[in-house]
Amino acid sequence: MNKALIKVLDCTIRDGGLINDHHFSDEFVRAVFTALSQSNIDYMEIGYRASKELSSPENFGAWKFCEDDRIKKVIEGVESNLKLSVMVDAHRVKEQKFLPCDQSPLHMVRMATYIRDIDKAVDVIKKTHDLGYETTANLMAISREEDLNIIEGLKKLAASPVDVVYIVDSFGAIFSDKVKHLIQMARDYLPDKAAGIHCHNSMQMAFANTIEGISQGATYADASLYGMGRGSGNCCLELLLGYLKNPIYKFEPILKVIQDYMIPLREKYEWGYIIPFMISGLLNEHPRSATALRESEDRDSYDRFYEELSKKAENPN
Amino acid sequence: MNKALIKVLDCTIRDGGLINDHHFSDEFVRAVFTALSQSNIDYMEIGYRASKELSSPENFGAWKFCEDDRIKKVIEGVESNLKLSVMVDAHRVKEQKFLPCDQSPLHMVRMATYIRDIDKAVDVIKKTHDLGYETTANLMAISREEDLNIIEGLKKLAASPVDVVYIVDSFGAIFSDKVKHLIQMARDYLPDKAAGIHCHNSMQMAFANTIEGISQGATYADASLYGMGRGSGNCCLELLLGYLKNPIYKFEPILKVIQDYMIPLREKYEWGYIIPFMISGLLNEHPRSATALRESEDRDSYDRFYEELSKKAENPN
Repeated sequence: MNKALIKVLDCTIRDGGLINDHHFSDEFVRAVFTALSQSNIDYMEIGYRASKELSSPENFGAWKFCEDDRIKKVIEGVESNLKLSVMVDAHRVKEQKFLPCDQSPLHMVRMATYIRDIDKAVDVIKKTHDLGYETTANLMAISREEDLNIIEGLKKLAASPVDVVYIVDSFGAIFSDKVKHLIQMARDYLPDKAAGIHCHNSMQMAFANTIEGISQGATYADASLYGMGRGSGNCCLELLLGYLKNPIYKFEPILKVIQDYMIPLREKYEWGYIIPFMISGLLNEHPRSATALRESEDRDSYDRFYEELSKKAENPN
Repeated sequence: MNKALIKVLDCTIRDGGLINDHHFSDEFVRAVFTALSQSNIDYMEIGYRASKELSSPENFGAWKFCEDDRIKKVIEGVESNLKLSVMVDAHRVKEQKFLPCDQSPLHMVRMATYIRDIDKAVDVIKKTHDLGYETTANLMAISREEDLNIIEGLKKLAASPVDVVYIVDSFGAIFSDKVKHLIQMARDYLPDKAAGIHCHNSMQMAFANTIEGISQGATYADASLYGMGRGSGNCCLELLLGYLKNPIYKFEPILKVIQDYMIPLREKYEWGYIIPFMISGLLNEHPRSATALRESEDRDSYDRFYEELSKKAENPN
């Protein structure tokens, strides 16, 4: 493993936006952008480019849609070599448009996709690739997919112009041996593409699994400030930088934006190690049941939640 | 790895006692004892047997001293196969006494020792072994020790009657490759002893490192309820049970005691993923500086703390 080859992508605003419906203030997004720029992080995912026909702007903040002009406004005047990405859900593609890359503040478009939607993802990958963007396919909920289906999907991606294929442990359900298997599979079937790793922390494995992904040859790694992300959140950016020890990355701006912005935000929104999300990870279930529990009066009824979700996991239909 | 061979030791009251000077109520200790018993956990470490000459009972709760009669009182009437252990610091041995094991509620005595104090540890190991106790040596602050010194210590332990030798990452400073190396070393030099693993969570590696230790052949693993322990705390017992999937261990009593006792306690005392402890782990420093910071008005001045501790780490004298 050559740690200096790793490209780090911060997904605080994008994955964190799943907690607050993307209602970050411009000041907050600018502070994150500035800190990541000062730290020389490679990529920042600034949100989704969602369809306004499918998701009403009345219900979401600006970072659900990431219009080019809005992005330009928020980053204006900040010295930066940071590349910006947005995410698009393959199963929610409708009227979204992209300008040619050289007319946009964006550098990368990432397609979040279930294996069953890879054809839809490849459509957008081809279009945005032709417009000059770097492109990725982020294979969501990978812990629920059969190897044979994953292989079929990887073969389709091998024939596409995609640059990076990410293994995404959406449920925080896998251990390092599975990460090893999946990254090796991605490398075997996609020898000409880069592999990436995006982990969730339901069982406190996000950082360790990211390290395992890197040591198996993934060269793109996702992380977020103080781990902000849906449910238990993501691999912590500060931990990943500590591990990589690449002198290019400056540590202090990251610590400063955590103390000034993330710690206060954590008072308002919940993420991190929380028992119901640990349970949904352990049972390989979507975190939505845990989110619902945490929003109810029974938020700390762990034993009952475990019993109910265990039954559901045993009888999925 | 045969997961069914693993012996699980809960150290909530002992390691957690380092946060609250061992001031747990009898009700709390009894609730933990009851839950661990119902869950069929193998061992519970109920505290230290510290010297009252060296540590005044005025300054500490009862679980700093763990007198046999006090233990008997707190567990009386609870149906249980749980084995109880206490810890003794090798560098703080003075007048402490042990009854013959068959007259005591304790089954195991664990000697926490730096490599330099192994002779002192072996003295107590011999005495308590002769009294009928299971014994362990817990090699503290292992991330700061040179391999040559560790090997010398392991050889002394090989010649002692000790049953288990633990690798203890007191500072939460090591990654899985180092765990692998240390456990392999313990197994090489102590083929007739069991190996154990005790991790701290400063960099969110406690659970992953415990798994690595187990997969390298450690058969004793420490954990605590909701990870309670000094600084960032320990490997979470609930995670370890989730990983082991040994049907002997019941999950519900553990979830219940967490929701009823640990969550309320966490409102009062701080442990878990906290940036200053992440920094002390990253810099391979004792967590005491981070503890001091958290007790000061500058508790969230991470960038300054990092700068100061980095200087100290570079110039230790």
